[in-house]
Amino acid sequence: MNAKSSAPFARVHIVGTGLLGTSAGLALSERGVSVTLADQSPSALALALDYGAGARRTPGDPDPDLVIVATPPDVVAEVVCGQLEMFPGALVMDVASVKLSIQDAVSAASTHAGRFIPTHPMAGRERGGAVSGRSDLFTARPWVICAEAGQEADAVRALVVSLGAIPVTMTASEHDDAVALISHVPQLVASLTAARLQGASEQALGLAGGGLRDVTRIAQSDPALWIQILAANSEPVVEQLRELRADLDHVIEALAGVESVGSKKVLAEALSAGVSGVSRLPGKHGASTTFASLIVVIDDSPGELARLLTQLGDWGVNLEDLRLEHSPGAQVGFADLTLAKDVVDDVESQLRDAGWRIAGERS
Amino acid sequence: MNAKSSAPFARVHIVGTGLLGTSAGLALSERGVSVTLADQSPSALALALDYGAGARRTPGDPDPDLVIVATPPDVVAEVVCGQLEMFPGALVMDVASVKLSIQDAVSAASTHAGRFIPTHPMAGRERGGAVSGRSDLFTARPWVICAEAGQEADAVRALVVSLGAIPVTMTASEHDDAVALISHVPQLVASLTAARLQGASEQALGLAGGGLRDVTRIAQSDPALWIQILAANSEPVVEQLRELRADLDHVIEALAGVESVGSKKVLAEALSAGVSGVSRLPGKHGASTTFASLIVVIDDSPGELARLLTQLGDWGVNLEDLRLEHSPGAQVGFADLTLAKDVVDDVESQLRDAGWRIAGERS
Repeated sequence: MNAKSSAPFARVHIVGTGLLGTSAGLALSERGVSVTLADQSPSALALALDYGAGARRTPGDPDPDLVIVATPPDVVAEVVCGQLEMFPGALVMDVASVKLSIQDAVSAASTHAGRFIPTHPMAGRERGGAVSGRSDLFTARPWVICAEAGQEADAVRALVVSLGAIPVTMTASEHDDAVALISHVPQLVASLTAARLQGASEQALGLAGGGLRDVTRIAQSDPALWIQILAANSEPVVEQLRELRADLDHVIEALAGVESVGSKKVLAEALSAGVSGVSRLPGKHGASTTFASLIVVIDDSPGELARLLTQLGDWGVNLEDLRLEHSPGAQVGFADLTLAKDVVDDVESQLRDAGWRIAGERS
Repeated sequence: MNAKSSAPFARVHIVGTGLLGTSAGLALSERGVSVTLADQSPSALALALDYGAGARRTPGDPDPDLVIVATPPDVVAEVVCGQLEMFPGALVMDVASVKLSIQDAVSAASTHAGRFIPTHPMAGRERGGAVSGRSDLFTARPWVICAEAGQEADAVRALVVSLGAIPVTMTASEHDDAVALISHVPQLVASLTAARLQGASEQALGLAGGGLRDVTRIAQSDPALWIQILAANSEPVVEQLRELRADLDHVIEALAGVESVGSKKVLAEALSAGVSGVSRLPGKHGASTTFASLIVVIDDSPGELARLLTQLGDWGVNLEDLRLEHSPGAQVGFADLTLAKDVVDDVESQLRDAGWRIAGERS
């Protein structure tokens, strides 16, 4: 476990007890911070209180040092202005997925905008709500802070670090361009691709494999939340969708005349551009210079995977990632182990010597 | 392990020793079938021979009962015709990802097309080649057979079953429409989305999360192979890409005028269509009536996951799937366990009693 750093704020008030608000409340409470909670929905608030994310504010409570606004994006600016007014000594930060429109709205509406720090933790799951909240949601995740140097920004940066996250400084506009690219456009692409499955035959759907599941997984996300996010970041998203459509047009044209000269070159370029794009992604699923993957065959018995992992543990091997690939009902599965590249060959021969079947290796 | 069924063919010749040919060779050899191998590339052939996928054909070898053509798609029809000619007593089947164009080409070019059975196993990985081959590649995967009743189709169906796969009967045209939808369009969408990352800043890429990785993972696939697949199935793919483009146009138009009346309705419909499309996918990532997921917090020490799995094994709990979510360098990870829905509540309370931290549950 992380050593629990002392948080830079003693009293934090959180407005909005969805996934992010509840998780922040849990994490801060764990670190000894006095947390109070508010939510427009009495039942959402009651749930977060039950989870132990903080206490209800009562009259006579001292003012907070920090307010975290974790409401749905379309009311963030208004709530931020209200909190700045209500607590004249407090910093106010938000955690919404769009930044420029909120920053502009607060600057235009409040004379206290100097106490507002726009932020965005890059953490979440498909399922939201207090019920999905957890104190380690932010661990090792980037947390964007849209503020330059300054006492206020430094305090928020220290808070983010105390929650285990990695602070990243960007302007609101840089942030919005970045999330359009890495989050909002992929969300729409997944939704549009998944939408095509509505008219598919059962027979066709029965052929689906892991590729389709991966491409469409985030299409399960909550439409109500995403309408707000997309509406608040429409400019960069539209710009990138237009570029995507231009590329799509080229591919359609090439495929429609696939026997014409040059059309296969267009396809080759589109596919190769995808390979080189995905290789730029840091971490385990992109091309990694640090990790490699080893696929071990596992019989479908409850103790088998445990036996493998116990053995790896005995050898002192640190698993960076593990994924079990297994079709329900099948008699064997595959444990896809992600290991540091410099140990993968040794581990492979140790495993073979110990009688494990290796199904493949990928770097 | 599966009981090894006796295969319906005694002598099988495999032309093309990539991923599918090598895997079929390994699986058939394991089941006692006499397998011979051929490949245009001497080094690819040597590798498959080394892996034990079969033997080199030598003059004087008896003719095979079955030839499996597992070459790249653009030469399949030609190779099939050659093999039908060369082995007058043999059935010939292919395993290419497109079916109608191959079936038509063979029918047009060969008087022996009655001995040809077009098939397509829905199995594969991003990485191809003999090096990725494994005898259980086809286990529990659908294997499409484009042939109605008849002695030949029945024999191929028995072969497919003997390899652990699930035979699915479709016409070539039904198959091609289905794979356009569930495989070819998602491949292009992933490539086009990943291509946008080429121009991204390091800073933006550093914010990327699991959603983008999932959407773009298959963009790593081999462009050379995909050009052939797409070119051979261009009609259904173009038709579906045009529908996708029409949906994309609606979204762009709605986002470009996001404050206009009706535009949010367009976004809501696009996102909801995605939710309902993805919910139609059978199995673990779609809406499952059979399985639920339990997320357990795991400290980052080598023995910790093994300890969890040993405990589950001791309780007789059968894991349907497992995924470790873990950011390199972070001190905690999450084991996302997929369990039968009817045991998940009991397992959760057993785990809590044993001191494990449960981070969430999803159904």
